[in-house]
Amino acid sequence: MFQSFSATTTPEQGPPRLAALRAEMTHAGVDAFLIPRADAHQGEYVAPRDDRLAWLTGFTGSAGFCIALADTAGVFVDGRYTLQSRQQVALEAFTPVSWPKTQPGPWLTETLGTGVVGFDPWLHTKAEIARLEKGLGEGLSLLRVDNLVDRIWPDQPAPPQGAVKIHPDALAGRSAAEKRAEIAEALRAANETAAILTLPDSLCWLLNIRGSDIPRNPVVHGFAILHADGGCDLFLDAAKLSDDVMAHLGPDVRIAAPESFGPAVMALSGPVRLDPATAPVAIFDLLESAGIPVSEGDDPCILPKACKTEAEISGTAEAHLRDGAAMVEFLAWLDAQDPGSLHEIDVVTALEGFRAATGALLDISFETICGTGPHGAIVHYRVTEDTNRAVTPGDLLLVDSGGQYADGTTDVTRTMATGTPPDGAVAAFTRVLQGMIAVSLARWPKGLAGRDLDALARAPLWRAGQDYDHGTGHGVGTYLCVHEGPQRLSRVSEVPLRPGMILSNEPGYYREGAFGIRIENLVVVTEMIPPEGGDPGREMLGFRTLTYVPIDRRLIDLSMLSPAERDWLDNYHAQVRSYLKPRVSHSARDWLIRVTAPL
Amino acid sequence: MFQSFSATTTPEQGPPRLAALRAEMTHAGVDAFLIPRADAHQGEYVAPRDDRLAWLTGFTGSAGFCIALADTAGVFVDGRYTLQSRQQVALEAFTPVSWPKTQPGPWLTETLGTGVVGFDPWLHTKAEIARLEKGLGEGLSLLRVDNLVDRIWPDQPAPPQGAVKIHPDALAGRSAAEKRAEIAEALRAANETAAILTLPDSLCWLLNIRGSDIPRNPVVHGFAILHADGGCDLFLDAAKLSDDVMAHLGPDVRIAAPESFGPAVMALSGPVRLDPATAPVAIFDLLESAGIPVSEGDDPCILPKACKTEAEISGTAEAHLRDGAAMVEFLAWLDAQDPGSLHEIDVVTALEGFRAATGALLDISFETICGTGPHGAIVHYRVTEDTNRAVTPGDLLLVDSGGQYADGTTDVTRTMATGTPPDGAVAAFTRVLQGMIAVSLARWPKGLAGRDLDALARAPLWRAGQDYDHGTGHGVGTYLCVHEGPQRLSRVSEVPLRPGMILSNEPGYYREGAFGIRIENLVVVTEMIPPEGGDPGREMLGFRTLTYVPIDRRLIDLSMLSPAERDWLDNYHAQVRSYLKPRVSHSARDWLIRVTAPL
Repeated sequence: MFQSFSATTTPEQGPPRLAALRAEMTHAGVDAFLIPRADAHQGEYVAPRDDRLAWLTGFTGSAGFCIALADTAGVFVDGRYTLQSRQQVALEAFTPVSWPKTQPGPWLTETLGTGVVGFDPWLHTKAEIARLEKGLGEGLSLLRVDNLVDRIWPDQPAPPQGAVKIHPDALAGRSAAEKRAEIAEALRAANETAAILTLPDSLCWLLNIRGSDIPRNPVVHGFAILHADGGCDLFLDAAKLSDDVMAHLGPDVRIAAPESFGPAVMALSGPVRLDPATAPVAIFDLLESAGIPVSEGDDPCILPKACKTEAEISGTAEAHLRDGAAMVEFLAWLDAQDPGSLHEIDVVTALEGFRAATGALLDISFETICGTGPHGAIVHYRVTEDTNRAVTPGDLLLVDSGGQYADGTTDVTRTMATGTPPDGAVAAFTRVLQGMIAVSLARWPKGLAGRDLDALARAPLWRAGQDYDHGTGHGVGTYLCVHEGPQRLSRVSEVPLRPGMILSNEPGYYREGAFGIRIENLVVVTEMIPPEGGDPGREMLGFRTLTYVPIDRRLIDLSMLSPAERDWLDNYHAQVRSYLKPRVSHSARDWLIRVTAPL
Repeated sequence: MFQSFSATTTPEQGPPRLAALRAEMTHAGVDAFLIPRADAHQGEYVAPRDDRLAWLTGFTGSAGFCIALADTAGVFVDGRYTLQSRQQVALEAFTPVSWPKTQPGPWLTETLGTGVVGFDPWLHTKAEIARLEKGLGEGLSLLRVDNLVDRIWPDQPAPPQGAVKIHPDALAGRSAAEKRAEIAEALRAANETAAILTLPDSLCWLLNIRGSDIPRNPVVHGFAILHADGGCDLFLDAAKLSDDVMAHLGPDVRIAAPESFGPAVMALSGPVRLDPATAPVAIFDLLESAGIPVSEGDDPCILPKACKTEAEISGTAEAHLRDGAAMVEFLAWLDAQDPGSLHEIDVVTALEGFRAATGALLDISFETICGTGPHGAIVHYRVTEDTNRAVTPGDLLLVDSGGQYADGTTDVTRTMATGTPPDGAVAAFTRVLQGMIAVSLARWPKGLAGRDLDALARAPLWRAGQDYDHGTGHGVGTYLCVHEGPQRLSRVSEVPLRPGMILSNEPGYYREGAFGIRIENLVVVTEMIPPEGGDPGREMLGFRTLTYVPIDRRLIDLSMLSPAERDWLDNYHAQVRSYLKPRVSHSARDWLIRVTAPL
């Protein structure tokens, strides 16, 4: 079982640890110290060693930060974590602050006024520090210091030593040597001598490897310098690398100890490509101190990684059929239970069991979100022993989950009826479905970004005065992070969509205290062949659906659907049936045939 | 009759005029001279005196410019005018250039290489000159000179002397004094001493006046300086002003001769607000030479003018009912004719006659676009005696037209079947209608711009591999310009939509050589009352429809419509019937009842 349901947190430890930190702050000559959730690689999950925020404050959420002052300490969390932060921290020592409404610069200016703000330059990006600096009042200055939490954490775990494994070229679709050559050529074209890579998924993609340093995301922690000649220096603990992996990496990838990364950076000649949005400001400092010119720009792996190869797309499609079969087993099982007999943890446990039974599950791709009734309305709800609600007949049950398989990463949400749906739920579910179908059917002229399409998913809800307060979709990796950029379906995403990009398509609707609805498929951006009657010469893109899992027809108001929407759903269900029938158990098969009948 | 159908152009005059211009160029020491279509007020229509481009080159289109060199002369026109420019200019002297693909800077760099490029600083905005300068090669420099065309135009008409009239406060919804006070307050808040106004529709809006200096747009040519104390200097020929208008303007609006504008500008103390996107660079030059600081920013009248008052909205609604009744008379008449008996000019003439018969028509709001069959596919087609095609049974007939009334400006497009529609026309018409309905039904959270909604209008066409190469909608004034900013429904419009903004909603579809389809209503942005079941506290905007004219049901494929789309159209037609039945003639009434029956 990958998922656990305990929210181990020790609020009583917070005040003494904070006192110890304040002693170090005095020693270091700073009046404030920043404790981010992030590590040096800015990922969504951190290793135990890097979980400084939880260790200090007790707050275990996936986003947020603390600013410790001599007489107060703000724990900055977004709306998702308001309640959780109040439960997890010792409120006599820590004050939850509503973020991003309150930004750290203005808060420091107001609360501290004048003084020195210390931070560990390895844990903050250059862009983040620039934003912070811009918001600081005149009496405040920033100071780079060693990590003061590390100094007071006696039993701080060691850095992760997870084994690296080979990601086969057959699944990647291109050899690591080809990728290195291609990026190196781009560097030469930009007159850059090297690029410094700090994102673990960039390393994994570039070198066709996967790691096991953190849960959920199969990445390896390390840094790399890719030279314009295609050679690569990889800085990580050699204990992570087997002989097979060394052989796979080949002689052009030189392994070096993490400690030698700094000196190697300072020995470069420039201009060196470095990404201010993702790289620690410490690396910019090193380059500056050595007088090496920096070429600020995107991590050169991000865009090619996002545009999946044919092999990655077909691997992902296969992973989705495998995962879809497990979902069908799960949904058939769920439908056969007396809802009142189940609690949320039973549902999560059963689902992971069906995924594990495929024999191919390497991890779940994130902690399963399973919310029944009012819990469904909490967008990022994670069930714990303390919150574990019984599925009460009449509840909507929202389950958002995914698996990591060697050939692909899945992420699927379905919302199920249990008994008679609550007032307004069927109409809202139908609107969410209409938005999700609108995205599925979308075609658009090349060059548009997620922002240009986001309204399609929301228009049916908007017409009813409803909306959802999250993006419509995020990028997804292939046996990599379930959240990856740069593509998104969102009001704020200006990145043009390109063939091969995988995205989620997940409109939702949430009625606080009552129910939550979300329907999510993964889709891949595809060049569309012009249909009969289409404009000649108009190059258009569209989405191909990757996820095949039945959508609960009990929650659809048929009278609201257009002929095209009805056709889409019937056609989708016919595909679900035909693809998954050979892959599921006898009992699930009958269920599958029943729930995928035409409307 | 406002519209004329002659395209008077004298290509044979081009070469001798160009020769005379070149002599002046030598005299002025320039190797190139720019002849824009624009006047000092950057409007869509120009007075005869300012029609330098047509006088010199023969090209009469509404957009474009010429660059004369010693041995060549480029006539820069966009795709709409490729054909027309080749027909109207003497090709031995002038070379049509495809613009904006080819930009003037690179063209000059390539064609001229080194030399001096002269231009009249009153006819180009600061932003335009900055863009030009950026694109020029190193060997080229810009030089401000007097207008060289004016020097060689012996019988150049005098500046227009159209009478100014009062725009009643009751129609404007606010007095001119209130508006001046409000803008003056904004200037004081921005620490600005004055704003210089160069846009005729800003003057008209601010002072509650209308003019008659140019066709179609009821504006007056002039400049104004609005001071931070609310006082205003208005620079125009006093012959345009009657005693009544003088009394309306009041003592705080001081009239001065056009010649005194320059000295008055140079006598200001700064910072002075001036809009680089719309104001002549000459005014920036004047301020700079006098050492007066400039505060670059939007013309302060643009946004308040765009957000119509209650009175303007109800006036516009009334104008639309009056205009809709005239359209119904026209469409009923059209349906009663043998299509083969009509030519495009007959249709335009009849339509203007029905509008004139309202007794309230002050002008048409633009030259009517009436294209039958393949002419409908030419987006900005204007019929002339030379192109006047017979309405051939089976043609689609596209008619885009509008009227200027004292209470509002209309702009409506309908596409009608004549006999059996061509292949693909019904499906395409239905898709265009679906897009137009999607915009009509749209609601959205406050803060979104036209860009965020544009996809709604296109999605039905996109799904079929089709699209249209123009924006979905433009801003519209109230008894002012039929094209006004800043609001637009377009992929490139980042201006948030605000209550009171009037826009067109006009998706289309064009099949070259075959037919054109466009359906256009005007709509006004409105605060929406949350419907039953809508999210509490979610502030949303929507559109209220202003245009009431039947949509041709013979061109709709009912089987493609959703229940919501069908409801919208039936409901719309029921409103058309109920609003217009009391306003139309007996014979048109029977037709109206028939064509507005439920689907």
